[in-house]
Amino acid sequence: MAAKRNTVTTDVPESSVAPAEGTALTLDPRLSLRVDSVIPKKRHEALKWFGWGYNDSQFYGQNGIICFRGDKYPLGGCELPSFTKWVEKKFELTVDPRKPYPQLPQTYPRPVENAPFLSELRGITKVEHSLEGIDRLIRCHGQTLNDIYSLWHNKFQRIPDVVVWPRSHEDVVQLVQLAHKHNVMMVPYGGGTSVSGAITCPQEEKRTICALDTSQMNRLLWLNRKNLTVCFEAGIVGQDLERVLREQGLTVGHEPDSYEFSTLGGWVATRASGMKKNVYGNIEDLVVRVRMVTPSGTLERECSAPRVSCGPDFNHVILGSEGTLGVITEVVLKVRPLPAVKRYGSLAFPNFEQGVLFMREVALRRCQPASVRLMDNEQFMFGQALKPEKSWWASLVDGLKQRYVTAWKGIDLSEICAATLLFEGDLKDVQRQESIIYEIAAKFKGFPAGGQNGERGYILTFVIAYIRDFGLHQGIVAESFETSVPWDRCSLLCRSVKQRVVSTLP
Amino acid sequence: MAAKRNTVTTDVPESSVAPAEGTALTLDPRLSLRVDSVIPKKRHEALKWFGWGYNDSQFYGQNGIICFRGDKYPLGGCELPSFTKWVEKKFELTVDPRKPYPQLPQTYPRPVENAPFLSELRGITKVEHSLEGIDRLIRCHGQTLNDIYSLWHNKFQRIPDVVVWPRSHEDVVQLVQLAHKHNVMMVPYGGGTSVSGAITCPQEEKRTICALDTSQMNRLLWLNRKNLTVCFEAGIVGQDLERVLREQGLTVGHEPDSYEFSTLGGWVATRASGMKKNVYGNIEDLVVRVRMVTPSGTLERECSAPRVSCGPDFNHVILGSEGTLGVITEVVLKVRPLPAVKRYGSLAFPNFEQGVLFMREVALRRCQPASVRLMDNEQFMFGQALKPEKSWWASLVDGLKQRYVTAWKGIDLSEICAATLLFEGDLKDVQRQESIIYEIAAKFKGFPAGGQNGERGYILTFVIAYIRDFGLHQGIVAESFETSVPWDRCSLLCRSVKQRVVSTLP
Repeated sequence: MAAKRNTVTTDVPESSVAPAEGTALTLDPRLSLRVDSVIPKKRHEALKWFGWGYNDSQFYGQNGIICFRGDKYPLGGCELPSFTKWVEKKFELTVDPRKPYPQLPQTYPRPVENAPFLSELRGITKVEHSLEGIDRLIRCHGQTLNDIYSLWHNKFQRIPDVVVWPRSHEDVVQLVQLAHKHNVMMVPYGGGTSVSGAITCPQEEKRTICALDTSQMNRLLWLNRKNLTVCFEAGIVGQDLERVLREQGLTVGHEPDSYEFSTLGGWVATRASGMKKNVYGNIEDLVVRVRMVTPSGTLERECSAPRVSCGPDFNHVILGSEGTLGVITEVVLKVRPLPAVKRYGSLAFPNFEQGVLFMREVALRRCQPASVRLMDNEQFMFGQALKPEKSWWASLVDGLKQRYVTAWKGIDLSEICAATLLFEGDLKDVQRQESIIYEIAAKFKGFPAGGQNGERGYILTFVIAYIRDFGLHQGIVAESFETSVPWDRCSLLCRSVKQRVVSTLP
Repeated sequence: MAAKRNTVTTDVPESSVAPAEGTALTLDPRLSLRVDSVIPKKRHEALKWFGWGYNDSQFYGQNGIICFRGDKYPLGGCELPSFTKWVEKKFELTVDPRKPYPQLPQTYPRPVENAPFLSELRGITKVEHSLEGIDRLIRCHGQTLNDIYSLWHNKFQRIPDVVVWPRSHEDVVQLVQLAHKHNVMMVPYGGGTSVSGAITCPQEEKRTICALDTSQMNRLLWLNRKNLTVCFEAGIVGQDLERVLREQGLTVGHEPDSYEFSTLGGWVATRASGMKKNVYGNIEDLVVRVRMVTPSGTLERECSAPRVSCGPDFNHVILGSEGTLGVITEVVLKVRPLPAVKRYGSLAFPNFEQGVLFMREVALRRCQPASVRLMDNEQFMFGQALKPEKSWWASLVDGLKQRYVTAWKGIDLSEICAATLLFEGDLKDVQRQESIIYEIAAKFKGFPAGGQNGERGYILTFVIAYIRDFGLHQGIVAESFETSVPWDRCSLLCRSVKQRVVSTLP
């Protein structure tokens, strides 16, 4: 989350204004520079080749205690004694630090060659490409459990045969035409965080597979402060996009769990939902225009009015198309000024049922704050266990008692559940929202459990996928895969690490 | 607007609960009764065959004064001396009450026969149909100026050859199959208020044209209070739909200008926008599911989750498809509890430019009330002239002076413009919204001009189309059509009657 930021060499140039209505999306490329991304072109130099996230961020065991390393997250450098106990009890295992991590394979699957394609790729285009094994392997999959398990156990027979890095819409047009001409399968690859299977190479594919990596297409093409719209190339990574806008006092406000690594194009292609969608909307509410290259031409709508007021809206066919229809190259998004106030909160409820009733009332009254997520007792206890302090249980109970003196005796700790809250807006709006939310909570026996717990819950979202890999490393997941028994232990872990979220109606 | 309401014989039956996930949209038809609509099956018994709206609502001249008849609108029964002067000055004409209204034609265009289709229609289906001239004529057009002009001057050579009134989704399936089998052109017809040309019969069409009138498909099929969703048949008229829901303490909140006469299916087919979209959203934000009959089957999505979270959303292809893809038969919509408070307001600005700056700031701060519409000086003066009082000008000036004592001398009445406001929500929310809006207005030299002006502006929307017909009757529009000169006078009228609305970004 608090990712170490590379220097941003690109400020938004003064000249980067929106084009007049009806002109093409792109301006002269010289108007805008590439954003210096947190993710390098050689992804594996910064990101794990065998799992989720940064190379230097990882759960590991030391002297029987689970620890987290790295400086990207608040948990970094912490020992987690309570979490250790939780894992030991839940899975009846002792953390074994000696278990091996997977090693890069000695050899990679042999490429399916398509000499005419490669020859034209080299001769006609100026697009960079790679045939190296590691470049190909790390782009053969998304981030499902199955993807990562297959990777650890060397199960991928088909991986991309070639990787290309276009640097503009025009490059993509050339590449798609070339692939079409030579019957090459092309898979657009953004942040690689897909959990839909769309970027996992089909293992039966006979054609040459070309992974089109969009990472070098990450320019801010223009910004229109008056209309509050911005145009980015599709390969920009979520946290880069927000950083560039933040420097302008603006935000898009789209924060899917994968936001550190996933790309704008991926958000559109997978119809992504953000944690703050109650205020900012999901990706389909934020997209104004999309430019997509298909084998039969570029699909784009000239009009950049905020709404399609007549005729079908084909953006909604592109949204969620998972790369099957073409390559998204540029996207116009709505932006907003940064909120004046950003405040976390949390609520505790005596049981899950009361929590659900609270969520229903919030939905009924349409007063959702930017984020409101309900978790059940198991998630709540799990979140508490992830605190670095040894005495998490005592401090939890004390804290709750303190806050809930009068009704404390009615609380059963094995039933209690919690909701995390995030409020964003003007101070007065946030205050009004808070008062409504806490009033509704009281109606269902909920009580405020502090902003720190809320922030914690919100930010823990970003380390959850690291826990998945820790589970793999300790063999919790592997066992279920190997034996083909019902995935009890596996699903328990998954259920535990992925909050049981009750979303409110929009 | 305040349409005389027929008795509603249909209360929502107790048993009308939402079906379980994954079941078809419709329940047993006996669960729900047809809504007794304000618009009868024989439309021309209540609505003008030659123009907009109710038979008994009309502008007319009497003793040189323009009056408005009927009891459906606040203007009903009023003499409009100021409006008379405005018209006389603007168009250099004297109102002539003796000008004739169009007469129903003696003969109607001869039907293009398709005996096998008619024979099967009669034999196989139980669907009512009509070959009568008047039934066919009134369904050959929408409500563009061109449509109505053509009607008045008997210019339609091709009108529907047959009109059918299906009573359920199943009827529509039968009809569409029949039309497909016999190469009959089918035009879905809802409220007949289209201004896109989609329901105007193509004058070169050689095939039999069948108008499919959806008015007899207007049941409330189910209501789910917990999920806040409702399923209606597509033929229900806007005001009927809101009335039925109001009795349940609910609202959809969709109010296009045509809301008195247009239908749910029409809203979806034309991608309608409502005057209160800032709070409730446009039709695409309100639709959860759509059921559409096409020649190759029924298109529907089983899932009724509030959001399509993966894959393209084909609702957005149906939205705005203008009846070209199929016949919409049933729609699931989001509903909300009726707002506790509904308050009108208005603002006056020294000039249009300040008004635009105000609207931009409102958009920037995302604090739009349910409705906020800016009109220019001409619209403002026009709206004032439509007041029944003789002394409108004096009372306007006095009112403004009173409200704006200190800065009054800076105001030029030929520059002044206004915005109408509508706030809906909880009392505290409305108060907070009002304080923000009036604070922003003050920044741009705007000042409150009273709730009455706001309500007036909002409700005048509903009589504007009657003015169009008055213009036709007095020959203002006709002249421009006949002489083919640039439509100066015509467009002036249109610009005058249709407020120049600056909409804020969503």
